[in-house]
Amino acid sequence: MKKYNVAVLGATGMVGQEILKILDQRNFPIESIKMTASSRSAGIKMQFQNKEYTVEAATPQAFVGIDIVLSSAGASVSRELAPSIVEQGAIIIDNTSAFRMQDDVPLVIAEVNAHALKNHKGIIANPNCSTMQLLMALKPLHDYSPIKRVLVSTYQAVSGAGIKAINELMEQSKSIIDGTYQKSEKTVLPQVIGFNVIPHGGNFLENGYTEEEIKMTNETRKILEVPDLAVAATCVRVPVVTGHSESVNVEFYKPLSPEKARELMSAFAGVVVIDDPATHSYPMPNQSAGKDEVFVGRVRKDLSNDNALNMWIVSDNIRKGAALNAVQIAEKMIEMGLI
Amino acid sequence: MKKYNVAVLGATGMVGQEILKILDQRNFPIESIKMTASSRSAGIKMQFQNKEYTVEAATPQAFVGIDIVLSSAGASVSRELAPSIVEQGAIIIDNTSAFRMQDDVPLVIAEVNAHALKNHKGIIANPNCSTMQLLMALKPLHDYSPIKRVLVSTYQAVSGAGIKAINELMEQSKSIIDGTYQKSEKTVLPQVIGFNVIPHGGNFLENGYTEEEIKMTNETRKILEVPDLAVAATCVRVPVVTGHSESVNVEFYKPLSPEKARELMSAFAGVVVIDDPATHSYPMPNQSAGKDEVFVGRVRKDLSNDNALNMWIVSDNIRKGAALNAVQIAEKMIEMGLI
Repeated sequence: MKKYNVAVLGATGMVGQEILKILDQRNFPIESIKMTASSRSAGIKMQFQNKEYTVEAATPQAFVGIDIVLSSAGASVSRELAPSIVEQGAIIIDNTSAFRMQDDVPLVIAEVNAHALKNHKGIIANPNCSTMQLLMALKPLHDYSPIKRVLVSTYQAVSGAGIKAINELMEQSKSIIDGTYQKSEKTVLPQVIGFNVIPHGGNFLENGYTEEEIKMTNETRKILEVPDLAVAATCVRVPVVTGHSESVNVEFYKPLSPEKARELMSAFAGVVVIDDPATHSYPMPNQSAGKDEVFVGRVRKDLSNDNALNMWIVSDNIRKGAALNAVQIAEKMIEMGLI
Repeated sequence: MKKYNVAVLGATGMVGQEILKILDQRNFPIESIKMTASSRSAGIKMQFQNKEYTVEAATPQAFVGIDIVLSSAGASVSRELAPSIVEQGAIIIDNTSAFRMQDDVPLVIAEVNAHALKNHKGIIANPNCSTMQLLMALKPLHDYSPIKRVLVSTYQAVSGAGIKAINELMEQSKSIIDGTYQKSEKTVLPQVIGFNVIPHGGNFLENGYTEEEIKMTNETRKILEVPDLAVAATCVRVPVVTGHSESVNVEFYKPLSPEKARELMSAFAGVVVIDDPATHSYPMPNQSAGKDEVFVGRVRKDLSNDNALNMWIVSDNIRKGAALNAVQIAEKMIEMGLI
């Protein structure tokens, strides 16, 4: 079996570290591996499969001879480095928002639209975590009975904002419990997250939506290949470490029973239905963290529209929401003979 | 000014204590006041306006000579005591779900449908906290442009489940931070709430909805007097102490602009619009706790339906969501000459 020269860009970050873990867990065919990050992190030692690696500064030269770059170092870094990475012959699977909506960049969820990889020109974009888990659940339904409209309210974990946000949640929570909490001048998240919820992710746009919300609309349309699909999101940060939850209302052109919806989703690779009210079984973030699957429950007829269903979708935002899907894309490209 | 003999039923609970605080803050015209609770709490000493009171067991005899009973001791207690309380000539303003959907019981939000008090037969029901804040925001919109459909996803604080649930949240959070957390056999909430979210409030019904969700559908219809209004809810508990948040999608028969909606809600007594993305101003539970108002923000055109708006509604679930509205109902009844 062919083996590949792999570089992880942003190796020291939360998603970068998870990518390394997943490459190991899935026995990815690695010829060589290189850790790269911003010059701030250069020189840091990291372990991978019992060998020590020194993090290199992410310059164009660092990617000479590399076949696959798995990137999650931020949109501006990706924008700067991707052209030279592609020119040097590597493919870059990018976790940032830099290229997602670019026409010549496939935006791919491994189980949902791997076919789009065929037209790649070197850059492949990994969708936003919130979009990822939503579409894992919706794709099998949409294939069976086309979707007309999607409304989603998210309950997003702080880990999507990085390790500093996790520390912030923990420190704030501890000091609020102790009664020593004092408002800090500078925080990673836009507001206090300890024992609070924040209806604000990313910058605000002119139409009153946040970037996080608009990503869900635009990326859903691109991945499902329905350019005018009606999608509106409200994205909210909650005091949870890992695991995004979503309350989703999905309207079809025709009625779809909850039973049929559960059957379709259960049969879809990567989706697990947990939906038994009698035993209080439904997905929750504390049970999805560290898992690969997207969990769906609370599937029920929308009381306000005969053609719609309500459901509850939970997944580990760092694994399927980011790192896992990036590695799965690389695997798919190997399988499809694209690298 | 006439003064009244008041009894608080469930005086030792979270809502009962808040009722006492509000009676004092609003200078309610009290001739005498009596604290009652389950026999378990009988004998406990409580302070009110610098006097000490001993909690009495809530028996029918305890309410002889009382004019107004403010009740929040649980649905079964209300069901048991309300008939004799009414027979003895008092009115009972009940915070539980016991009588809310009963045809001859007005279900009242003070600012929304006080007119319904006129037909009371002794029992007046206080709506569920989640319904309360929702309808405070929707009423001025509905009066201007009738509502066709409401979809709501809640982010509910634990205080709605009582002081034990707050302690549970705090203890779980502390032990999770310390790394000493161990799953407990018996919890107040149906699942771990520390750094988690739980899509489950009240018992599950046959249609897959929870009691908490169905309350929102049924109570909204009754209060707005639109028996077939399309309303569907997903109710979720989040690790917040006080302050329920709601992500709401409201569809009208005709388009309504966000500007007009803000104007209408701002002009409605008890509602405050906080909606300035430029300064990161939007309602949050940590800023609504302890306040009387219902706060609305993130008002924007639904990208998926020209006739709909998305918005974000936050309020203190113990104050306007329960105790405050009960006292306001008593005040309205005095004002209307009903007691």
